[in-house]
Amino acid sequence: MPVSMPSKPQGKASRIERIEPFHVMALLARARQLEAEGRDIVHMEIGEPDFPTPQPIVEAGMEAIREGDVHYTPATGLPELREAISGFYQGHYGLELDPRRVIITPGASGALLLALGVLLERDEAVMMADPGYPCNRNFVTFLEGQTQSVPVSADEGYQLTPGQVSYHWRAHTRAVLLASPSNPTGTLIPETDLQKIIQLAQGKGGHVIVDEIYHGLVYGQRARTALSLSPDVFVINSFSKYFGMTGWRLGWMVVPEHYINDVDKLAQNLFLAAPTPAQHAAMAAFSAETMDILEQRKDEFQKRRDYLLPALRELGFKIAVEPKGAFYLYADCSQFTNDSYAFALDLLEKAGVAVTPGKDFGFNQPEKHLRFAYTTELSKLQEGVSRLGTYLNEVITKA
Amino acid sequence: MPVSMPSKPQGKASRIERIEPFHVMALLARARQLEAEGRDIVHMEIGEPDFPTPQPIVEAGMEAIREGDVHYTPATGLPELREAISGFYQGHYGLELDPRRVIITPGASGALLLALGVLLERDEAVMMADPGYPCNRNFVTFLEGQTQSVPVSADEGYQLTPGQVSYHWRAHTRAVLLASPSNPTGTLIPETDLQKIIQLAQGKGGHVIVDEIYHGLVYGQRARTALSLSPDVFVINSFSKYFGMTGWRLGWMVVPEHYINDVDKLAQNLFLAAPTPAQHAAMAAFSAETMDILEQRKDEFQKRRDYLLPALRELGFKIAVEPKGAFYLYADCSQFTNDSYAFALDLLEKAGVAVTPGKDFGFNQPEKHLRFAYTTELSKLQEGVSRLGTYLNEVITKA
Repeated sequence: MPVSMPSKPQGKASRIERIEPFHVMALLARARQLEAEGRDIVHMEIGEPDFPTPQPIVEAGMEAIREGDVHYTPATGLPELREAISGFYQGHYGLELDPRRVIITPGASGALLLALGVLLERDEAVMMADPGYPCNRNFVTFLEGQTQSVPVSADEGYQLTPGQVSYHWRAHTRAVLLASPSNPTGTLIPETDLQKIIQLAQGKGGHVIVDEIYHGLVYGQRARTALSLSPDVFVINSFSKYFGMTGWRLGWMVVPEHYINDVDKLAQNLFLAAPTPAQHAAMAAFSAETMDILEQRKDEFQKRRDYLLPALRELGFKIAVEPKGAFYLYADCSQFTNDSYAFALDLLEKAGVAVTPGKDFGFNQPEKHLRFAYTTELSKLQEGVSRLGTYLNEVITKA
Repeated sequence: MPVSMPSKPQGKASRIERIEPFHVMALLARARQLEAEGRDIVHMEIGEPDFPTPQPIVEAGMEAIREGDVHYTPATGLPELREAISGFYQGHYGLELDPRRVIITPGASGALLLALGVLLERDEAVMMADPGYPCNRNFVTFLEGQTQSVPVSADEGYQLTPGQVSYHWRAHTRAVLLASPSNPTGTLIPETDLQKIIQLAQGKGGHVIVDEIYHGLVYGQRARTALSLSPDVFVINSFSKYFGMTGWRLGWMVVPEHYINDVDKLAQNLFLAAPTPAQHAAMAAFSAETMDILEQRKDEFQKRRDYLLPALRELGFKIAVEPKGAFYLYADCSQFTNDSYAFALDLLEKAGVAVTPGKDFGFNQPEKHLRFAYTTELSKLQEGVSRLGTYLNEVITKA
């Protein structure tokens, strides 16, 4: 007995209008459609490693499920996993870390929601670099906060500088959100800058949140965690990218001592807990066997970067600063177009190459930029570059 | 090189003070401590079925992991799972449902966050029954909304009535949140009331969100989903309780057609997607083999209820309305105490029985109530009742 309703309620919270979808999704859908029609597409748009989850992690996950370890864990996560992560900081960064400060979260997304949830008052602002990961500003919007997007350029390695943080700081600024390595630019924040920004923000009673989810994928150098500079930063990390566990949805956050109980309380209410099979699987993430696999993959990512960076430059894309980490290249395509979104669509249709348009990363000249992800094997990257070359020759010839 | 900080930033968002932790957690921690010391504890506080995940679901989950199906799914979930759920509504409720309206979420928690995220403007209010599931009001607080907690009693079966909804509706009321069966009371909302409430809310341009996560566990009758009354309600469900998949963190939400894209957009940003192994595992949730297992478990839950309800009444607890579903009994203990929290702690220490104090469910005479969960086997429930009897005899004798 369907009821005839006097009115169809269709109102939406105003935040919905301020939150953007991932524009690349439309492009990805079109790519899938072309593939269904038999076209071969080179995927350089996907922010997910092409490698499978390492076998030891797979086996630990299967074993947990077989043994029935699929009940709720504490909201902050399995104590033994928190300890394993603390041990990882000790072994990898030489950092002593109270395991109680490690909060297991449903992905880095869950971590950011918790961090902002405990820190951000309505209408307070979070400062972040533009271009940047789009979800970051949407989390702030979701919580009725404001985003202070500061345009950054290749000149400062696409990272906020202490001078910018100081210049843009306002009374309502609550936190600075940094990502090192950054998505989409792959750049690191220099340690001296990071230290100054931490001092600056904390001196104003504010906070620093550092996204280190690509920290495992830094090439040719070893990055230090922000935690080695201050015990009062919030550091977000994840099993998704370096550890190859994207779909398992597991991350972690290291919080200042003072916030443990509040983050726990919020996690209880928002999530109950992170997925249990994933937590047990991740217990195998730090074993020597897994680490060997992961370091080999890192080398492979580095090889891809070392191929793709000069190859794109050769084609005429401007990549002024060498990315040191993650698996992205953020390329200026203004030599070819003043509309990178239309350009990306055209690339897909005519060259069979999928890339992510700049507009997914903010409002700082997005029309001039594309993000290339090297999350596909070298031979495919080569094929992609070859197709790009052919396409650009035609475009340039016609123009 | 730790840096000496000019000030230790310790501020917290004001919402944190308005969100309460689960009080039962302190009690659970104490129970675990007693157990570690060798005490035997009867657990009647835990809101999680004691049954393992059904074997077909376990096997489907392991198979997915073995096959490497652990990458991100679309934000709205695996299309085949959305279709399977749509098929479940067809088979179980006789309801045609466009699979696009089914959104896969990280638990029912994720669903509620999405529903409130698209509907609730800051300072707008959500009406809900008190006692009720505590996270519900905390989600509203998290999003800077207000909770209109309406005290409900056994007289109206612990559910909001159309009269109450009408009486308490204000200009800033945005939605009514119902749970049927309810946690902590196990009661259902009568269909005629539900229909009137939907008409009433929608007539005022508002929304109705119905939590049906215990819908599979309704005894002696078959409940109809709110979706059969209106296509414009938001219905939340979960694989946790009836399907025995708590730690997998998987739920779903059926949304009105008009909201699909916005919920998708929000899910992309907040979660990326629900856990992939869980989604593949859940593909086995609706098979005949699994359903047989689940219906047997339902029968077992019913037996437990049929034992525990009269047994607690016999001891002197008042349970005025027979719970029709879930696995909870909400008992008035005012004959024994005017402080149910202290009473629960004392029960744990002296009788070795863990129950949940009323204060976890709101502000409506919580000091007079306890929640008993029958999530443990019949013999243990009997042991618990026996211990309660001994304890109460002593208390009453001393008094």
